[in-house]
Amino acid sequence: MIIDCHGHFTTTPPRVMEFRKRQVHALQTTGKPLDEPPPHITDDEIRSAIADNQLKGMKERGVDLTIFSPRAMGMDHHFGDEVSNVTWAVYCNNLVHRVCQMFPEHFVGVCQLPQVAGQKPGKAVIDELHRCINELGFVGVNLNPDPSGGNWSDPPLWDKDWWYPLYEQLVALDVPVMIHVSGSCNPHFNAVATHYINGDTTAFVQFMTSDLFKDFPTLKFIIPHGGGAAPFHWGRYRGMAIDMGLGDLNQRMFKNLYFDTCVYHQPGIDLLLNVIPADNVLFASETFGAVRATDPNTGRAFDDTKVYLEASKVLSDADKAKIYTHNALGVYKRLGRQLKV
Amino acid sequence: MIIDCHGHFTTTPPRVMEFRKRQVHALQTTGKPLDEPPPHITDDEIRSAIADNQLKGMKERGVDLTIFSPRAMGMDHHFGDEVSNVTWAVYCNNLVHRVCQMFPEHFVGVCQLPQVAGQKPGKAVIDELHRCINELGFVGVNLNPDPSGGNWSDPPLWDKDWWYPLYEQLVALDVPVMIHVSGSCNPHFNAVATHYINGDTTAFVQFMTSDLFKDFPTLKFIIPHGGGAAPFHWGRYRGMAIDMGLGDLNQRMFKNLYFDTCVYHQPGIDLLLNVIPADNVLFASETFGAVRATDPNTGRAFDDTKVYLEASKVLSDADKAKIYTHNALGVYKRLGRQLKV
Repeated sequence: MIIDCHGHFTTTPPRVMEFRKRQVHALQTTGKPLDEPPPHITDDEIRSAIADNQLKGMKERGVDLTIFSPRAMGMDHHFGDEVSNVTWAVYCNNLVHRVCQMFPEHFVGVCQLPQVAGQKPGKAVIDELHRCINELGFVGVNLNPDPSGGNWSDPPLWDKDWWYPLYEQLVALDVPVMIHVSGSCNPHFNAVATHYINGDTTAFVQFMTSDLFKDFPTLKFIIPHGGGAAPFHWGRYRGMAIDMGLGDLNQRMFKNLYFDTCVYHQPGIDLLLNVIPADNVLFASETFGAVRATDPNTGRAFDDTKVYLEASKVLSDADKAKIYTHNALGVYKRLGRQLKV
Repeated sequence: MIIDCHGHFTTTPPRVMEFRKRQVHALQTTGKPLDEPPPHITDDEIRSAIADNQLKGMKERGVDLTIFSPRAMGMDHHFGDEVSNVTWAVYCNNLVHRVCQMFPEHFVGVCQLPQVAGQKPGKAVIDELHRCINELGFVGVNLNPDPSGGNWSDPPLWDKDWWYPLYEQLVALDVPVMIHVSGSCNPHFNAVATHYINGDTTAFVQFMTSDLFKDFPTLKFIIPHGGGAAPFHWGRYRGMAIDMGLGDLNQRMFKNLYFDTCVYHQPGIDLLLNVIPADNVLFASETFGAVRATDPNTGRAFDDTKVYLEASKVLSDADKAKIYTHNALGVYKRLGRQLKV
């Protein structure tokens, strides 16, 4: 079974994002949350949004199951207050849940949290987390390390007061965290080209230089997009870890940390697989999202990452089984248990 | 001749940085620039700072010439007003100039600009630029794309009003620009591990998505640290360029853009050389700076990047000659002319 650990519901009907726009506009112009329920999306709309896109792609590419979450760019934590962001997160998570119910063999849910820029994750975030895991059967969460959307103005991931209460809930629920920023309201950062990759690198160094993994030894984090810049600069980070007295970088990081394979060319995947242990890589393609184009050199979609893995000269069959299947079942323990039943 | 295009004077006597600390402290506590001249550093101090460190390393590693600039972390644009930052830049540039005068066969200068967070580069920046190029014989400049030190609160590199007058001066002087952030005052970003690499990636995408190279067709930019995350995500960026209607990424970027080889492990250098044309790679090691440690796996310093280049299986002798020598002479045209005389 081939599990893609990183898919987003990017193909929702336009009414979904239009509602969010009205929500943000209402808040910005009136200072009050929009007094309007989110639009109903029919089963047929959801079915065709998925069947004609993600599921079609999965079948063509030989992917069996996608760990599926709301559109990352749409999480939009930097706009909206708590009431708006809870309404929005509940709505987006419910849409993902309906996909999972309609196509239970092909999709399992990961939730968006109703984070709010400038506000410590509190009861509203934890309530939605519990609802998604306990009631909807989701198996993980996306956590935005920069809910300020490119201003990086809230505390870093190692801040005990700000983040640790949430981590305690994640440990209690036994779910892993994918680090994933959302949109950018800083003109320096193109969201998908810059902010996503910088967010990954930033989270990596925060993990490397803090005691977070010591304080939460069982908590698992996935850094998407191949870990941002980290594998390319693995020598830099290994050396800095030694300079800082942090010891061997692999030993320090790889009880808790995983990188996905959303790296869209053969040399990048080759580097990732050369540098990062196969036990710590999860197959993913982030479809359909960041890049829609076909590579004119190969005639294949850039984001058809399975092609690069299959062409790897360093992966053994046992490594492939880990990356495609077993690592995901170990990290997303609730998924592992669901599939065993 | 082997030219290292990225070295910093990181080994100045402690009095140098102590002066900067007093400058910043004075400004923060009194609101006025420090009324004290920078400390005199003797020729002997400079000679031993270089001979026992950078020059020793260069000789051991077989590097002939280093393109040398003030300590990047010390540029410190995020602290200080214009008066303080001019005093500081002049002082730091003069120290580099004295190194170049003492060891003219081994060092050529690149200047620090007296940028100030929140302030458009104006007369003070341009005056120091002219002084360094015309009077001190420097051959290039370091430009900080985020003088706010991790807050990213000034305009991006494509902002015409903010940056273009400076670019016009650089074109007139025929000098290239190395993009290099300085320290970070944002707790999210470790300066050398995060901010440097994110700064590189950020600049890359700003170049890719803007008309800057069209507007300044002769201006050359070097992104250090192997281009941040860009080569690792080259497929992502190629695909996004197609999605955005920007055409072929290599054609778009490589008339104006160069990456250095400050990537501290073999797989990283292999990827860089696989993905980026040899015409657009400049040899560099950033000594002594980011990483001081020895790799326990190889017994070599992480930052001895020549070892990785020599071990590359894809570089021809002609490629090596470009990366070690000819590209630098073409990009740093004033250096090329100096060496021809």
